[in-house]
Order: sequence, then structure tokens, then C-alpha cells
Amino acid sequence: MRLSQFHLATVKEVPADAELTSHRLMLRAGMIRKLASGLYTWSPLGLRVLRKVENVVRDEMDRAGAMEMLMPAVQPKELWKETGRWDKFGSELLKIRDRKEQEFVFGPTHEEVITDFARNELKSYKQLPINFYQIQTKFRDEIRPRFGVMRAREFLMKDAYSFHLSPESLNETYEVMYQTYSRIFSRLGLKFRAVQADTGAIGGNASHEFQVLADSGEDAIAFSDRSDYAANIEKAEALAPAGERPAPRAELKRVDTPTQKTIADVSAFLGVSPQQCVKTLLVRGREGLVALCLRGDHEINEVKAGKLPELPDESVLAPEEEILSATGTRPGFIGPVGLPGNIPVIVDRSAAVLADFVCGGNADGTHYTGANWERDARITRVEDIRQVVEGDPSPDGHGTLQMARGIEVGHIFQLGPKYAQALGATVLDDQGKAQVMMMGCYGIGVSRIVAAAIEQSHDEAGIIWPEAMAPWRVAVCIINPKNLPEVREAAEALYRKLEGRGVETLLDDRGLRPGQMFADLELIGIPHRVVVSERGLASGTLEYRRRGEAENRAITEDELFTLLA
Amino acid sequence: MRLSQFHLATVKEVPADAELTSHRLMLRAGMIRKLASGLYTWSPLGLRVLRKVENVVRDEMDRAGAMEMLMPAVQPKELWKETGRWDKFGSELLKIRDRKEQEFVFGPTHEEVITDFARNELKSYKQLPINFYQIQTKFRDEIRPRFGVMRAREFLMKDAYSFHLSPESLNETYEVMYQTYSRIFSRLGLKFRAVQADTGAIGGNASHEFQVLADSGEDAIAFSDRSDYAANIEKAEALAPAGERPAPRAELKRVDTPTQKTIADVSAFLGVSPQQCVKTLLVRGREGLVALCLRGDHEINEVKAGKLPELPDESVLAPEEEILSATGTRPGFIGPVGLPGNIPVIVDRSAAVLADFVCGGNADGTHYTGANWERDARITRVEDIRQVVEGDPSPDGHGTLQMARGIEVGHIFQLGPKYAQALGATVLDDQGKAQVMMMGCYGIGVSRIVAAAIEQSHDEAGIIWPEAMAPWRVAVCIINPKNLPEVREAAEALYRKLEGRGVETLLDDRGLRPGQMFADLELIGIPHRVVVSERGLASGTLEYRRRGEAENRAITEDELFTLLA
Repeated sequence: MRLSQFHLATVKEVPADAELTSHRLMLRAGMIRKLASGLYTWSPLGLRVLRKVENVVRDEMDRAGAMEMLMPAVQPKELWKETGRWDKFGSELLKIRDRKEQEFVFGPTHEEVITDFARNELKSYKQLPINFYQIQTKFRDEIRPRFGVMRAREFLMKDAYSFHLSPESLNETYEVMYQTYSRIFSRLGLKFRAVQADTGAIGGNASHEFQVLADSGEDAIAFSDRSDYAANIEKAEALAPAGERPAPRAELKRVDTPTQKTIADVSAFLGVSPQQCVKTLLVRGREGLVALCLRGDHEINEVKAGKLPELPDESVLAPEEEILSATGTRPGFIGPVGLPGNIPVIVDRSAAVLADFVCGGNADGTHYTGANWERDARITRVEDIRQVVEGDPSPDGHGTLQMARGIEVGHIFQLGPKYAQALGATVLDDQGKAQVMMMGCYGIGVSRIVAAAIEQSHDEAGIIWPEAMAPWRVAVCIINPKNLPEVREAAEALYRKLEGRGVETLLDDRGLRPGQMFADLELIGIPHRVVVSERGLASGTLEYRRRGEAENRAITEDELFTLLA
Repeated sequence: MRLSQFHLATVKEVPADAELTSHRLMLRAGMIRKLASGLYTWSPLGLRVLRKVENVVRDEMDRAGAMEMLMPAVQPKELWKETGRWDKFGSELLKIRDRKEQEFVFGPTHEEVITDFARNELKSYKQLPINFYQIQTKFRDEIRPRFGVMRAREFLMKDAYSFHLSPESLNETYEVMYQTYSRIFSRLGLKFRAVQADTGAIGGNASHEFQVLADSGEDAIAFSDRSDYAANIEKAEALAPAGERPAPRAELKRVDTPTQKTIADVSAFLGVSPQQCVKTLLVRGREGLVALCLRGDHEINEVKAGKLPELPDESVLAPEEEILSATGTRPGFIGPVGLPGNIPVIVDRSAAVLADFVCGGNADGTHYTGANWERDARITRVEDIRQVVEGDPSPDGHGTLQMARGIEVGHIFQLGPKYAQALGATVLDDQGKAQVMMMGCYGIGVSRIVAAAIEQSHDEAGIIWPEAMAPWRVAVCIINPKNLPEVREAAEALYRKLEGRGVETLLDDRGLRPGQMFADLELIGIPHRVVVSERGLASGTLEYRRRGEAENRAITEDELFTLLA
């Protein structure tokens, strides 16, 4: 592409609400322009990158035997009623009324539509397993769209849905998709981890998220330093500490802690470490209050807590009055010793192995020291209810856990029979009996990947694209202040040779000053830059710089071809 | 592609409401499935064809120097307010309210969004001319969606928008787009005509429609039998008949025509030809009634009439009471002779050259014979207000007009400054002065092309794809009732050779009976079919049939390669 014939519009200033680096750089590079809150136009430059991602995704999905199709963006209410999600999905579901007052949604996902398609198209087990996918525009009416295309309302997504007769077959395709996703993100040149994830609102059994690692990521990931183990922090298991609980040695003593309500205050005041304290949270359960006990240095994991049978999916801390009326004590002084008998006491694995610990005194302004489970305090059940922390043993038994931040760009689920059951999607098995199909679903946030790649790879000057995502792999710059025809011709010739070798090349023929030219090319992240100049022609070399490196190198044309081969 | 690994689901029965051949065949072939009124899922088979069209469109747009981008489907109300189309577009505009009660539309077209983009991105005349396009899902809330994807609500469209400093530059790009569209439809293997069209609601100056010729087409086209002239019938000019109006010879006579109100009845009753009669329509003008006079055998062209200064854009016939009160006469007996002086008389060119004609008597139950313009009847103005008919002289002076039916698949417009003016989209010219940009817009109905191609090319057995649109160019069928390994291997080898030569090939390895196999392949329209069988292997030949031909031919493998080269 000759840059003089392309619409490149880099800008210096971006709106103050663009907080995230990728958002700022995409605006500065002119890849996207905001149309309205959460709605972005992809400029020719931005679309080039988006299509690179799209094409790698398509290529690998096809290679995995999935079949591309295209479902409507607008979906009828009736199907969402059938699965119950019309009411349950929440206000991210953009509802639409047509001229005849019929209701529709702008699809945020397509489980309903594909299952409806499948119940009509698939009749026999012989057609299974089958995996359909599409790459299509979706809409989620985010309450607070932000971070540019990272959390836009309208976005491009690849969604795939597989159908099976048995859980084993679902497992097999799930495994193929796991490998396919790994190939996709590897080909795109991204550092990523496949992490075990909670299945959340979509439901189902196994689930993995594919996270692009970046310090700015919204998600916390725990991974082993010695194995492949990685999990979303919501999901990562905290093992029980090794060894038995020591026998009690200290006596239970009530001590005055007049204003010490937090673990930090109490442990400092009493001169014990937080690891020797037990903190007690009183939360609203399905039937009355429930006590959750954690070691003082640990935090509750709300997703794990939400799975306790005593608690609703989203538990909340009981308000002060409720605690006061149930226990006669204010929050900050609650503990497991002497708690009313109708309150279940769920103890985290790490808290359960403590002996002679400090805990709330169940009387305002007091704590206990020398407290011990069983002897002094009831345990209803020991459970894993805490957040893992760096240094915890990896749940697979290999190494210890490290923490990282990630951006979710892919998610695979084993849905099981959930949607097929709701919509009555059955096939006849080899006995001629109708069987509800099992389903898997597999999503990739195509437009989000573009932003995630920038979060992972950029510097002060701008974006640093992985080769597979760059709008062009190499830029040929003409520095020709005397406007010598031989310089122009040499640059044109090099441009044509590169294009002839199938290397996507940008010829910067705008005639700008070198500083302006280089600033643009660095901002838009072109991986390789060569300069054709009078001086270079004289020495038979090109001035080459790899994006992200600080120094130029003089190389020959052949060396350039080798480097780009 | 091995058909055993593809989701092909042909069906025998289609719903009764599928009236149009292309709709029926697309359903029978399993290319599309209806999700809701005007909303269709494209199956893997259908999408393969849709992508072929999309890729040819993209390739030719790129070659023409247009730049692909991607705008949001959801557009904010404010922009539509700025151009006035929020109110004027009508109820085909699907309006959406988000969770914050802000209003949006699901874009049926993108003039507003691109002009907003341009007013922010384009600053200088040096950036012009420029041509942006996208291939994207659009929505029009049709009152009566029908004919499958031919008139769906959600559809895939290529829309392009060019920006210019001068009308000359707009003209140049318009001409390039005209040629590009011609190349696109030629490459797709379609019989089409570029016809002059009315600019309609989008406004602007020049406009051409690209019509795929098909008897079932909704649009009537007039074209010359001796030149390139072609026009939408709404637009085709009816020339004035050659020669002067003859001098009056007959006397004006009022005759009784007690029950004869129509031209057919009057001309039969009086024994004159309809060509010798003048029919008079009284329509509601901007200020009172207007008389439109046509030759008895001609029909009014409402688009032409709508352009008369006396008439509103959409004129309606005056109701009986209004005619009665204005003229004292009932419809059927109105004529230009003695019409009240306040009613303008607009006479069509062909009616204006008549002498001694028959017309209404302006008294119930009577007509005049021997009527003559000027002598007996006023002419306010002579205009072209009729529909052309077959045999009319071509307006370009070459040949006579023929009629055909067409399906509109493309439309190019010179919009001029309309949208740029409304949205204040200006650039600085070479004098540093702000100038409103001129615009062109260029649409192609990508999904509609698929249906139009089928309307143009099918037979009893199913679709007959042009090579460029076929899901696969050739099908290799295995007929192997004895399940001989050499037959299977020969078919596999041929399949691999064809794919190796870049010929998209479908291997029908489903093991069906030949009849079923051939019926499917004919239905889905594969252009070339070869059979590998025991008998063929023995003779060293393949049984070949071109889709649409009635006979098989025995050909060698080399002959097949030559044929597909």
C-alpha cells in the first residue's frame, strides 16, 4: 500500500476519558473513532488489524472441522422466553420493538438461535458431533461502556456451538477447541494462559478462559510456577495446609480490645501475627445468618462462598443491626466461640488447622486469645472459601502459585443439556429413541483481542504489533530531501519486490520529514522499518530498525528478505 | 470438502408462503432457514455462496482504490435528527431505546455516520477524493418482509461513500464506481443492465440502478434494442412523436356516451382507436386541481408527474365529489375542452400532437369527437408524463425500446452536498476556505444477489450457479455398490488432484444411491459433476455432466482438468 493513497489520520490529543493505554493508542493511531458511548467505527487502519485476527480465527476453526454459518443479529423474544433468559439475562440485553410491536433482542450471544436451528436441522445421531460457528456483530448494553473496544457495547465475536449425543463426545470436541484456541492465540503472537474458570451465568460443567496476560488486565489469574496449572482466581482451589491441627496448648482468655476491630489492629495490639487470628464474617444465608471463618491474612472468595448450600448465589454481609440483634455484639468483635447455636460455622481449610488462635469475643470491645476449634468453638463444616494468594501450593501438587493479571479474550464451556433441554432439541439415537443433545459453546472476542494485544505490547512511542496482527509487516520509508529520482525509484523497486514476495508492505511516500514519518510508523506499530535514502544507496544498504529496538542497523536487501522470510 | 463431513440438509417440502422460486430453492437446498419474519439464518452451504459474492465485491472495491472500514450497526438518534431523517425516513427505520432510555436506530444505511466520520477525519482538500466502504449487516423494518432474502429485514450490504471538493471529481469517482459495479456483476456471471434511475428519497443528481434481469423481477426496465441505453421505467423518457401536429380537419361535436367511461368502452362505442382518444386525469395539485392529459393507450408515470411544479411529490387522483364540485361532471366524462380556467392542463407529448381527437365532454354521459388543441382546448404546458411502452423510440436516438423485468442489486448515486451540508462536513480548499464536500454513495445488496442469481438461473431440478458463485465448482460422486477399494481410492485421488489445482471440489462420499446423490447436487447447483465408478475405471473415463445439460459425457481426467482450467 502506498501511504499517500491510504487514509492514515494519527492524532496527538485524545479525550480524557480514554484511561486505558490500548484505548488511547487506538485513538491516537486513528484505528477507531467513537460514534457514541460504547460504539466505535473501525477506520481502514483499524479494520486491517481486526481482519487479521478474524482470518486467523476462521482459519483455525475451519481446520478444526467447525462449519461457519451466519445467524441474524436480531432475535425474536419467544426463543429467549423459552430458555427463561428474556427475564434472567438482565439489562445488558438490548430489547427492541419492531413496527408491529413485536419484541426482539439485539443478540449478545446465540445459544437460543443455534439450538433452535439445531432442533430443526439435526434429526439423527449420525449427524453428530457437529460444530457450527459464526463471526458476527454482537451487542451488550453495558451499564458503563469503557476502555474503547475492550468493553464496547457493539463488538465482533466468534461464537461456536457444538452438539453431541454423549458427554464423552462433548469432552472430545471441548478438547479440540481447547487446542484450537491455543493455536489461535499462539499464531496471533500473544502471551496467554488457558485458565480454569467458573461457569457463571451461562451454566454447565467444565469451562476455561483464555487470558491474554497484561498488567492492566481486569482478571486475576493464579498459575503454578512448575506446571501448566492456571485458574481464574475465582476458581483456583486453596489446598488444606499440610499436617494435622496441633493440639490446644493455651487457655482460652478474653482480653480487652476496646477499639480494635480489624485484624490489623487486633494483631498489632496483641502482638500476634494475622496468620494466628481467625476472622469471622456473618453473611445472610438462605435461612438466617451464616458465619464464615478465615485465617486473618486471607480474603473471602465470593464465588466459592456462593456455592455453599447454606448461601444464595450472591451472598451479602449482614448489616450491623442484624448482627447486633442476632448476637448482641457489633461487627469487629464477632468470633466462633460462643456464637448462637443456630448459626452454622463454615471454616476455611487454612483457618481450620489453627490452634491457640485469636478471635472476636462476641462481646463489644473484647477478643479471645488461646481459642481452639472443637474445645472452644463449633465447626459446622470445613470448606475452601478463601481467595488463593501468591505462594500457596498449586492445587495440582506441582509448584506454588504465582499471580498475574489477564484480559479474557476467549471462553469455552461445556453447557451440557441445558439449552437443548429447554428448547427440546433432540435427535434419535441408534435405538431410534429421542435424546436431548449435549452442547458446548466456544467464544472469542475478536475486537477485544486487538485491544488486548496492545495492552500486552506497547511502549512510549506507540503500539508494537505481533507480526501476525500488524496492519503491514514492513514499512519502506523514502528520505529524499533533494527529490532524486534514483532514490524514489529504488524505494518503489524495493516496495514492489517485497509485495511480490508476499510481504505486506507500506510505502511511506508522503514526503514528510523523517521525524514525523517515524513517529507515525512507531505509533501504528509496524514491526519492521527500512529507510531508502541517498546515503544508503551510495553504500548499498538499507537503514533497518525492528519496532521496539532502540538502534538502527545497516543491512543489505538480501538480509532484509531473509529477515522477513 | 468431503460431503460426509459437511452439514448438507436438503428438504422436499417448503412452506406455502415461499412463493418466489429463489426463496423455495434456497429453503429446499438448505441454504437459509427462517428465524422470524424477514430474519434468516445462513447455513454453512448458504454462507459459502454469500462469501463468494462478498469476496468479489471486496476485491473489486479494493482494486478501485476504495478503503474498507466498519461502522457500528447501532447509530445514535442525534445524527438522524441533524439530517432530518429521524422523522422523514418512515417506519422502516428500526428505532431502539437503550437501558438509559437513549434512542438509536439499527442502521438501514450509513450516510449520517460516514458524514460524521468525514467531518472529523477530513480537514483538507488534499485528502480528497476519498472513497470509504464497508460490508455490513443492515436492517430495514419492512412492513411485509417476503421472498426470503430478496426482501428480508436483516441483510448484508456493501455501502460505499465518496467525498469530493468538486462536482467534476464526484463525476469521476461515480464513473469509476459504474465501471467497478459492471465488473463485479460480470465477474459474478450475472446478466444485468445498468439503468438510469430516479434518485428518490436519498436525493441528489445522477443515479444508476444495476438490475439483474429475471422475469420475476419487481422492477420494469426499458432498454434500447440498438444501444446501451437502459432506464428504470420510472425514469425512461418518452420522446415527442416525430413531426408536427396536423391541422384540425374535423368539427368539434358532442356525442352521447351514456355509460362509456373508460377509453376502451368509448373507443369501441365510437369506432375509433384508443390512440385517437385523449384521457384526462384530475389530480390534486399544490394549489387546487390539475388536469393531466394522455393519449388513450398510454399510462401516467407517477414519478414524472411528481416532478411537475404544480404537483406534490406523490400526487393522488381527486375523489369523485371534488371533481363533481369543480367541474359539474363525474369522472369518466372529463376532458380538456371547456374545463374551468383555473385548472392547469398539462398535456403529454404524445397527446399534444393529436388532432381531431375524442375526449370527455365535461357533461355526464357525453364525449367530444373532432376535438383539437388550441382551437377547442387550452394547453398550459406540454410535458413528458407518461410511461414508455415497448416500441417507443429510444431516448438516445438509437433503436426502439424493449421491456424487461429486473431485480435491483446495486444502486449508485451522486448525492451532491446534501448530507455534508446538513452535518457541516467541510474541508479547507487550496485557498484555505471551508468548502462543503460533495458526496457519492454506492450500494450493493450482497445477500440479495444470491437470490437474484437463482431467479435468473435455475431449472426444475434446482439452482444453476454461475461458476463464480457456486459453493463448489465440481462434485466428484462415488458410485461403488460393491464397495471396491480401487473405486474409493480413485475418487479420493481425483478429489485431491482437483483440490491441489485449486479447484474447489465436493467429494460426495455419503454412500447414497446415485439418484439421491444427483438430486442433491442438482438442487444445490454445482456446475460440474463427475462420477467415479467401476465401469468408468475399466474404460479409463469419468462420467461428466455440466449442470443444466441433459446428457452425460465420458471424458478423461485430462479433459476434465482442461475443462476446469
